[in-house]
Amino acid sequence: MKTFMGEDFLLSNATAERLYEGYARNEPIFDYHCHLSPAEIAANRRFDTLTEVWLGGDHYKWRAMRANGVDERLITGDADPYDKFLAWAGTIENLAGNPLYHWTHLELKRYFGIETIFSIKTAPAIWKEANAKLATEELMVRGILRKFNVYAVGTTDDPADTLQYHASIAEGTAPIGKISTKVLPSFRPDKAINIDRKDFPSYIGRLGESAGLRIEKAQDVLDALSKRLDFFVGQGCRASDHALEWVPFVPKSDAEVNAVFTKAMSGEAVSREEADAYRTFILCGLAHEYAVHGIAMQLHLNSLRNANTAMFARMGPDTGYDSVHDHPVAENLASFLGRIAAAGDLPRMVVYSANPKDYYPLATLVGSFQGGRFSGGGVTVAPGRMQLGPAWWFSDHRDGMEEQMRVLANVGLLSRFIGMLTDSRSFLSYSRHEYFRRILCNMIGTWIEEGELPNDLDFAGGIVRNISFANAKDYFLG
Amino acid sequence: MKTFMGEDFLLSNATAERLYEGYARNEPIFDYHCHLSPAEIAANRRFDTLTEVWLGGDHYKWRAMRANGVDERLITGDADPYDKFLAWAGTIENLAGNPLYHWTHLELKRYFGIETIFSIKTAPAIWKEANAKLATEELMVRGILRKFNVYAVGTTDDPADTLQYHASIAEGTAPIGKISTKVLPSFRPDKAINIDRKDFPSYIGRLGESAGLRIEKAQDVLDALSKRLDFFVGQGCRASDHALEWVPFVPKSDAEVNAVFTKAMSGEAVSREEADAYRTFILCGLAHEYAVHGIAMQLHLNSLRNANTAMFARMGPDTGYDSVHDHPVAENLASFLGRIAAAGDLPRMVVYSANPKDYYPLATLVGSFQGGRFSGGGVTVAPGRMQLGPAWWFSDHRDGMEEQMRVLANVGLLSRFIGMLTDSRSFLSYSRHEYFRRILCNMIGTWIEEGELPNDLDFAGGIVRNISFANAKDYFLG
Amino acid sequence: MKTFMGEDFLLSNATAERLYEGYARNEPIFDYHCHLSPAEIAANRRFDTLTEVWLGGDHYKWRAMRANGVDERLITGDADPYDKFLAWAGTIENLAGNPLYHWTHLELKRYFGIETIFSIKTAPAIWKEANAKLATEELMVRGILRKFNVYAVGTTDDPADTLQYHASIAEGTAPIGKISTKVLPSFRPDKAINIDRKDFPSYIGRLGESAGLRIEKAQDVLDALSKRLDFFVGQGCRASDHALEWVPFVPKSDAEVNAVFTKAMSGEAVSREEADAYRTFILCGLAHEYAVHGIAMQLHLNSLRNANTAMFARMGPDTGYDSVHDHPVAENLASFLGRIAAAGDLPRMVVYSANPKDYYPLATLVGSFQGGRFSGGGVTVAPGRMQLGPAWWFSDHRDGMEEQMRVLANVGLLSRFIGMLTDSRSFLSYSRHEYFRRILCNMIGTWIEEGELPNDLDFAGGIVRNISFANAKDYFLG
Repeated sequence: MKTFMGEDFLLSNATAERLYEGYARNEPIFDYHCHLSPAEIAANRRFDTLTEVWLGGDHYKWRAMRANGVDERLITGDADPYDKFLAWAGTIENLAGNPLYHWTHLELKRYFGIETIFSIKTAPAIWKEANAKLATEELMVRGILRKFNVYAVGTTDDPADTLQYHASIAEGTAPIGKISTKVLPSFRPDKAINIDRKDFPSYIGRLGESAGLRIEKAQDVLDALSKRLDFFVGQGCRASDHALEWVPFVPKSDAEVNAVFTKAMSGEAVSREEADAYRTFILCGLAHEYAVHGIAMQLHLNSLRNANTAMFARMGPDTGYDSVHDHPVAENLASFLGRIAAAGDLPRMVVYSANPKDYYPLATLVGSFQGGRFSGGGVTVAPGRMQLGPAWWFSDHRDGMEEQMRVLANVGLLSRFIGMLTDSRSFLSYSRHEYFRRILCNMIGTWIEEGELPNDLDFAGGIVRNISFANAKDYFLG
Repeated sequence: MKTFMGEDFLLSNATAERLYEGYARNEPIFDYHCHLSPAEIAANRRFDTLTEVWLGGDHYKWRAMRANGVDERLITGDADPYDKFLAWAGTIENLAGNPLYHWTHLELKRYFGIETIFSIKTAPAIWKEANAKLATEELMVRGILRKFNVYAVGTTDDPADTLQYHASIAEGTAPIGKISTKVLPSFRPDKAINIDRKDFPSYIGRLGESAGLRIEKAQDVLDALSKRLDFFVGQGCRASDHALEWVPFVPKSDAEVNAVFTKAMSGEAVSREEADAYRTFILCGLAHEYAVHGIAMQLHLNSLRNANTAMFARMGPDTGYDSVHDHPVAENLASFLGRIAAAGDLPRMVVYSANPKDYYPLATLVGSFQGGRFSGGGVTVAPGRMQLGPAWWFSDHRDGMEEQMRVLANVGLLSRFIGMLTDSRSFLSYSRHEYFRRILCNMIGTWIEEGELPNDLDFAGGIVRNISFANAKDYFLG
Repeated sequence: MKTFMGEDFLLSNATAERLYEGYARNEPIFDYHCHLSPAEIAANRRFDTLTEVWLGGDHYKWRAMRANGVDERLITGDADPYDKFLAWAGTIENLAGNPLYHWTHLELKRYFGIETIFSIKTAPAIWKEANAKLATEELMVRGILRKFNVYAVGTTDDPADTLQYHASIAEGTAPIGKISTKVLPSFRPDKAINIDRKDFPSYIGRLGESAGLRIEKAQDVLDALSKRLDFFVGQGCRASDHALEWVPFVPKSDAEVNAVFTKAMSGEAVSREEADAYRTFILCGLAHEYAVHGIAMQLHLNSLRNANTAMFARMGPDTGYDSVHDHPVAENLASFLGRIAAAGDLPRMVVYSANPKDYYPLATLVGSFQGGRFSGGGVTVAPGRMQLGPAWWFSDHRDGMEEQMRVLANVGLLSRFIGMLTDSRSFLSYSRHEYFRRILCNMIGTWIEEGELPNDLDFAGGIVRNISFANAKDYFLG
């Protein structure tokens, strides 16, 4: 019987332990995709209570509380922070088998040094002890980034954003002062692509202003995005990001695309096919821009957002009402990749899906767009340019991470994998990198113990180290 | 080496064994969805032979025999019962790895006290011993329900049914006498929904008669179903059930739906889209009724029935010619749930799929419709109102059950799971609850052994006990 | 800690080892589907270097090298064979967790007796030792077939092929001399079915010539194929094979199908629906032919070929640019099977998918077309006539094989499974049968150790032996 979440947590054998201790534990963190607020980083935010830092914006936890029958007042409502905390304590007792159970305890251990098992009974003492620690510098943003050896974070930013906080952080002029962590903006032009949203015309107006351009046709959108991308790259941006419920692929003439654009700008509704024609035009154009700018293109596929329309109307997006979609993805993605590759516009790409059913098609499809260099020289150094993204969102747990890595290993090159990210809105999520690394070390350590991989710790440890940090650093900054 | 199906069957460690012994083994059975015949229960049926009780209606076994090359005469034909039994014995020898192999041996052990391994060689002795026991009261229906501590069974009934057997059982006037098992009808209006079937008009006639209403338009169907639902609820009904090959979602005006209804009633063929418009209308209306009546709505998705049209023509439905379908489910189900939730008509729901690819979308989608209570008070007590249904049909085995529970645990609240059912036509299936509980205890026990859950048997045992029985009881009767 | 790929490789317990040693290791190989060149067999080809035999046509390895950033010159280009070999050595170091890692080392062990771990460092010595062995008779084709006890191979052949090499091999007049391995042609009429390809009209011309028929309408295509099938069966053909990206099912009248045929023959483009109408006609007609000729029909579904159109234009098909498709398969396949079964035209079938998501629908759907015999006699001997094909292509690894076998065991009869094939273009792939058998023995051995199957080695060993060899022999030749 192992101790609950002890030193050997998730490590089922000695080799796995040795790999974790020797090659993973001390690696820096390159959190290349998250939803942290640059303003809060710049401000070196301090958190008053566990409720604020844990429950302030974490819709994973909100969902769990709702499933546990908790009243919304105690989740996102105006209840007292301590009552909310107790409602969360009552929920955690019902989360056996859920990653939140592990994450929460890891956060208590690694951030607060609290080893108690969290429950209704232990909640009051934990509340006091943790809140006291939150008042110290160690658990302000600067302290956290240092404590967890965070080499870089990739935030998620709108192209029209001024990136003022990124600038002040980079310059060392923000309240947080000089920090060694790189805070890199990511270019996420979803609002310029979602032509079927009500706020599209007003957004296009804002985008035009930010780029100093008048936008009158679809190509102007691309031009504006290109100008903003210049600016973003100047501010350290190394990646774009796209949330796509499905992969659009409806190639049309420029004239047809412009007609759709004009229609949408006049406030008229556009059909799904029309919207996809516009999306296809923009995405192909952006792929070209990303290739030219040398930045990576991230696609997040198959999430189904805001299914609960009544709650969406009341609470807005990102409040815990999203789920896993199940569109087929191969046909359109193959057409899209085929088209941009044929045009010489294939950027480095990371393709994620919220649905594990997509791992085989995605991993093998991006694998069909690796390489293709005919330089005449020796071995070129661009391994792993097309990546199957790590287990994402609802698959972000031990079973899901292992499934994603096993598929990737079986049909591609695990050793070239750029590893994990938090995708989080919370500064308490860095211990999830530990979670991932333990799972990685356990998988590889078990292969060695089982005679499926040579017993050569430096060889296996090198893979572990690269996936923990170096591959991501090389991929985004190398 | 463990003994074949010994005390520690499916339990791989001491904690799993302790959980099973202490918290699962003695829990009553709440078999909330099955296809037992109320008439046979009322009659306290006695079974002449193993062939009758095992092979009489079990199309799982028929399929296996066909795959083993057995002549249909020996499966559903007029062959001698003993010859059929021998053909089954020859098949079981080829069923290594199939749940039928385990179920059959569990049934021999738990119902008959027979520990022999079943094969062609041992078949003659088993035949004699088991048939002798079938002649005793212990293996008549009353004896079985008592022996297995069956607290409740949920049968599957047509809205036009008189429920006479349920009544006589409840009153204690049936031949079976007074029993402590509750025999609860379930409301399954498939025939009122499948407007594209030949017998739809005649069925609507019967439904109208049973409700004392003249049915002339779609709303009348809903009115008739509502009246029958009143009656069902009066007879103890706590759940409805719907078999849907796919999720229909084609919202149309009442006038359009009525036109489809009229067309079908006149015997004309309706298109899939027309049928789905009618289905959408009825399902939305029924959701409202279920919410009002406080009963649960069960959806069974993605089974593909009667693909073998030639055999269907010869043998009819439910004869072993069904399979797993692979429709995408998220888009339409999201629209359906969004619509009924927005109308305030969301009943408690249990959503099953025959295809494990649907677990992630379904579990996360129903998870987006949990909670939503704004009572202003403290913690409300309606946890787990939206349920991912247990592993169903072709997934009803150790791998399938574990997969369903792991997905549920990872993205939702395993502790609120209402657990297993037999979905069976046979009175010999109660040992499948033991099968499920062992798998459950093994999963949770292993988490404890591996340090993934605190070593607190009362905590983990409480979860086991709830999933074994109490959650279902609370959900349907609480 | 187990030795890397030692005697107990992939065998996690003593029972698994005993099963492998006693019942699997020495079974002959029936490699019923591969892409070996009959000409190379007939010629008893000798291979000059490891590069030639390993990298000459193996697009699995090419993909891996591309993902590792290797220049195309060193993969399929004009680089020196030794430099290519070194590029492969540099890639293998990055293939931890990939089946190529195991396959490569198994090949070194079993073909060359080389126990060294393959890496950049060991590459030079391996190059010398292996090339020297390639010069010996033992590693010419004849030697390999004898060394691996290859009972039969099923090649993949175009209906218009003369099968001259099969004939000379069978007669013992080829350079390879008299060999005990049966080299059986398989009938793969893809080119007669893919009416939407540019070269369709010219191919139909060739087909007509080979059959001595003028082809003027769709039925003539069937007639020509039927004549060629007569010839193939005369040359030992026992199986057909079809690569279908999706399952077409668009039933149309003969006149409509002929109109599509005429259109395509005149060089006009046909729509997907038109093409599918033609495909449906031909596939239904061929099913009849296969049933009449008593040969098995193999369907390979859900591969997505040549997505990288730019590389396809440059390098042609089968060069490592294929991937896993994700079409739903159940609806059309059910309609197709239902139609041919109703017509009495259901041949024995093996249905593969490149996408593991299809295992449940496929295994259960083919399971709905087993049996159906009403002979009036006793048990007929045609078990397992409808087969879920083994793990294929991108699933051809330990996780994939185990997944396919577990689904098959859970919903069908594992004991009737016809087992593994190489699907390979390389003569070095026979050790993959060992790989498969170890995985099979480990799965069954573990069931015994865990008390899930009786501890009866002859019973379990019989299953192992049958799946390793006898089932395939009976299925194709019995």
